[in-house]
Amino acid sequence: MRYEDDAPARLDAAVRKTSQSSRASAVVGKDRLILFDTTLRDGEQSPGATLNLKEKVEIARVLSRFGVDICEAGFPIASPGDFEAVKTIATEIGPLMTGREATGQPMRICGLSRASEKDIQRCFDAVKHAPLHRIHTFLATSDIHLKHKLNISREECIERAAKAVKFASSLSEDVEFSTEDAMRSDPKFLVEVLKEVIAAGATTLNIPDTVGFTTPIEYQQVFEYLIANTPGADKVVWSTHCHNDLGLATANSLAGIAGGARQVEVTVNGIGERAGNTAIEEIIMAVRTRPQQFNVYTSVDATQITRASRMVTSFTGMAVQPNKAIVGENAFAHEAGIHQDGVLKHAETYEIMTPESVGLSTNSLVLGKHSGKHAYKARLEELGYTDLSPQQIDEFVDKFKRLADEKKVVTDADMEAIVADEIYQPEHVWELRSIHVTAGNLVKATATVSLVHIDGHEVTEAAVGAGPVDAIFTSIQQVVRVPNRLVQYKINAVTEGVDAIGEVVTKLEFVEDYESPEKSRRLQRTDSGIDAGEFKNPQTGSVTNRNFTGHGADTDILVASAKSYLSALNRMISHKKQISMQQTPPLE
Amino acid sequence: MRYEDDAPARLDAAVRKTSQSSRASAVVGKDRLILFDTTLRDGEQSPGATLNLKEKVEIARVLSRFGVDICEAGFPIASPGDFEAVKTIATEIGPLMTGREATGQPMRICGLSRASEKDIQRCFDAVKHAPLHRIHTFLATSDIHLKHKLNISREECIERAAKAVKFASSLSEDVEFSTEDAMRSDPKFLVEVLKEVIAAGATTLNIPDTVGFTTPIEYQQVFEYLIANTPGADKVVWSTHCHNDLGLATANSLAGIAGGARQVEVTVNGIGERAGNTAIEEIIMAVRTRPQQFNVYTSVDATQITRASRMVTSFTGMAVQPNKAIVGENAFAHEAGIHQDGVLKHAETYEIMTPESVGLSTNSLVLGKHSGKHAYKARLEELGYTDLSPQQIDEFVDKFKRLADEKKVVTDADMEAIVADEIYQPEHVWELRSIHVTAGNLVKATATVSLVHIDGHEVTEAAVGAGPVDAIFTSIQQVVRVPNRLVQYKINAVTEGVDAIGEVVTKLEFVEDYESPEKSRRLQRTDSGIDAGEFKNPQTGSVTNRNFTGHGADTDILVASAKSYLSALNRMISHKKQISMQQTPPLE
Repeated sequence: MRYEDDAPARLDAAVRKTSQSSRASAVVGKDRLILFDTTLRDGEQSPGATLNLKEKVEIARVLSRFGVDICEAGFPIASPGDFEAVKTIATEIGPLMTGREATGQPMRICGLSRASEKDIQRCFDAVKHAPLHRIHTFLATSDIHLKHKLNISREECIERAAKAVKFASSLSEDVEFSTEDAMRSDPKFLVEVLKEVIAAGATTLNIPDTVGFTTPIEYQQVFEYLIANTPGADKVVWSTHCHNDLGLATANSLAGIAGGARQVEVTVNGIGERAGNTAIEEIIMAVRTRPQQFNVYTSVDATQITRASRMVTSFTGMAVQPNKAIVGENAFAHEAGIHQDGVLKHAETYEIMTPESVGLSTNSLVLGKHSGKHAYKARLEELGYTDLSPQQIDEFVDKFKRLADEKKVVTDADMEAIVADEIYQPEHVWELRSIHVTAGNLVKATATVSLVHIDGHEVTEAAVGAGPVDAIFTSIQQVVRVPNRLVQYKINAVTEGVDAIGEVVTKLEFVEDYESPEKSRRLQRTDSGIDAGEFKNPQTGSVTNRNFTGHGADTDILVASAKSYLSALNRMISHKKQISMQQTPPLE
Repeated sequence: MRYEDDAPARLDAAVRKTSQSSRASAVVGKDRLILFDTTLRDGEQSPGATLNLKEKVEIARVLSRFGVDICEAGFPIASPGDFEAVKTIATEIGPLMTGREATGQPMRICGLSRASEKDIQRCFDAVKHAPLHRIHTFLATSDIHLKHKLNISREECIERAAKAVKFASSLSEDVEFSTEDAMRSDPKFLVEVLKEVIAAGATTLNIPDTVGFTTPIEYQQVFEYLIANTPGADKVVWSTHCHNDLGLATANSLAGIAGGARQVEVTVNGIGERAGNTAIEEIIMAVRTRPQQFNVYTSVDATQITRASRMVTSFTGMAVQPNKAIVGENAFAHEAGIHQDGVLKHAETYEIMTPESVGLSTNSLVLGKHSGKHAYKARLEELGYTDLSPQQIDEFVDKFKRLADEKKVVTDADMEAIVADEIYQPEHVWELRSIHVTAGNLVKATATVSLVHIDGHEVTEAAVGAGPVDAIFTSIQQVVRVPNRLVQYKINAVTEGVDAIGEVVTKLEFVEDYESPEKSRRLQRTDSGIDAGEFKNPQTGSVTNRNFTGHGADTDILVASAKSYLSALNRMISHKKQISMQQTPPLE
């Protein structure tokens, strides 16, 4: 913006234009770029990124405050848990207006559904609780998918798509249709399909590059061709959905905009299957930094980027690399942590955006052992934790002060780690009472743990291991006894310094009962395609063993490891209980 | 390639064409894309990515085997260490022909230099030891840099550039010139500068987007404009150099190619300052996967991608995020770790590249405690460790077998972690003899360490800490006493399972003597702009405190942590010794 002087005025005008309006579909003009965030749907499909209900709701809350236009909250028919999450987000987050001044309306809540009445009805039953909602349905259009996945003809494809959209339109006035694997589909056939779905009532048409195959020029040309040739093209919003397999997702999305798209489907940090989706932060900052290059504006509050990024990283356990654009720890390294030489009289010599513009505060307030309860409470509110009970606040302040005793200063990151560690944990079936470890290179690592069950009984076990973490996990497993395999074990130092809070993320995969392999069998699959140990992706048809992610934060990484492992196990146990309550006869 | 049937034939023909030739500059035809890797120069400028000499040489060896055309090995005048690294790589790696059948010639070794005779001479003295070498010199051309950084007029800029290139050409027949901050420079002025440097003997012209500001269309247009308007444009190779601040580096590089560029400047994993540079793996696979979209081919062996990526991650400590294109752990997750449902009869339904095409073997050989020495040795050779001494092999096999005792199977990743941990360590001033730790949530973490100095004396210290790692670091620091600040502490589980080898990366920043702050002062800066504690980037003029990265691998993360911290401290001590030997009077 610094180099294109008309930018601020243009953005101001744009924001004013939006604020005066009350409905997204009404304000879609030439310059309005709709941000459709699918972190909770396509993002959550990343291997191991499983989120629990509380985490999904918190992410949706941040997206709402961020100014995101549409939140795709899940795939309601995929599982009862998915349905519940979409419904809860529609009910609790759907009406919120905090931080949405520029948008002038609450966030629209969307659910995904295959092109069948049963899917669509289930989707509507979840999203309808939001003041603004959307049904998103899809069908593959490439010959390779029609032949090998769906086993239907082109004619059947058109018929099925139109029928689905017609049914969705009978339920909701806002219906999005996606032509899966569009970039490997015959463009002439795409026109045929799209013409019929517009006639059937679709209001947004999404042209996904499902396999991450396209290039900017090609993607722009497809939009130009489809918009020029599809009857009714001017009545709908055209949307991009890109995958990053060749590192081109952001450029392709921007090229789609140049070709006429006015909605982009994105995720925070670009998470998603394989190499992920287009990153929301890159689109926002590209459009802001080069306003003369792109004929659109967004209504988001870019200073929420860092907060959203950190929350998604923490909850999914999917780290962002240091050299990630906008949200990587080095992205502004010419600014933070580096003192410029006298030669650099003007920051703009090497700077195209400021860290502050994305909400990265270089001088965050530091609290210590002499800070009062009021100061901690005020800081918690500034960090966005406005809905804590007085009792919760007391407990947190207590923890902060104990931490201050140990490490002298308590930073924002310390506070967020502690709060997140507490409030987004699943129901505790087992809780950690005590842990004691002896280790070293001349002794066998030994751990003793005492766990308390929710029913009150305490169990203590000891074990040796290849290292202290192995010993801890083995001793916990001797108590809990849920068959699992460790998929990932990560430690992030949340704060700087040797005495930093360490945040441990543990990812476990449910495995068949290793204690009695001869009895092991596939767990029963419910009608919705999900069982306790497997996740069937209704879009791709692939089946994965479900992963469970646990978090733990502590200045002692061994304690944090124990908490994190136990948190993942608790999550696995809760999930199993939920499934067994609604078990249906096995399909196999 | 699967969807564009002419691709393999086209590639084959291209490779044959290259093999028949002996010099890069001679075979630059319309379709030849020159890969210029700057992992060791621009990549190593990432905060904290400091590499030691052995690591730089090993990365250069992998780049050579990879088929990279040109390796920018460093910035010789920046420090004596940089000079030594470039010279060693020129001497040891410069002549190698292993794996370069498709290229038909060894890798060209390049060094960077500012536009001054002293810089250029120093650069030449380092690169001249390679059979094929290049001098790369640069000068800023944007008004903002001319005014605020260089304080020279446009006329002086042209004069200085031409003079520098003329001098470089008198030393080497291969000279590259870069117009720093080209994308914010007046295109008409760029033509003036470039015309003169071509006349002065430049053979490659690089047009860098220094601040990561450009967009694909803009970048393509700049190349088209410059190539059409610069006298002598057809006599030189045009080059891209992109930064990823807006997530567009790969797309911009490809757009530059469309505009006529035939060299791309890239780094492994896209590392580099701020959001990094264009990733070599994305360019290679974009060009391979969509040959009809791009009018170029490369001569690299793409199956070396995974190996190069892992080595750079391990040596720099810069992790790759799971959703990173091509080299992220999830990039092929639809393939590995997920068993496909019966619906997916054709892999290509969701696959545009195979994991094998980038060297990711899904079924790596697993060795165990019953595997013989021969099997381990053969596997080491397959992994590329062909130059180990019999004594080293014996030592490694010993370690592998001890590991197999602990964790039953030894994977490729285990073996690479152990080998890398040993052979790329700096000189050990202090070595770890023993460590013993007690920790838990009801006791104060306590560590006892014994270290042996290179002169033979042993020191034992004990300390308490906020956690076991804090206690270990504190006790080590009580022995070593080098003032430092912990910048980063990361643990990666190298292998799967609870008993995985943990690899710890510790990054330390040298700080002023914390024991006598009243005496603290800036350390003496040498003539080359480097001192023991600071790194002055001659390109940007910015000054950073130098970071030192240490590695440690062990099944016990506490032992790995101790090793890693000690390795970083040893590196800091070696660096200080090296500097103090060549100290010059303080500049301040």
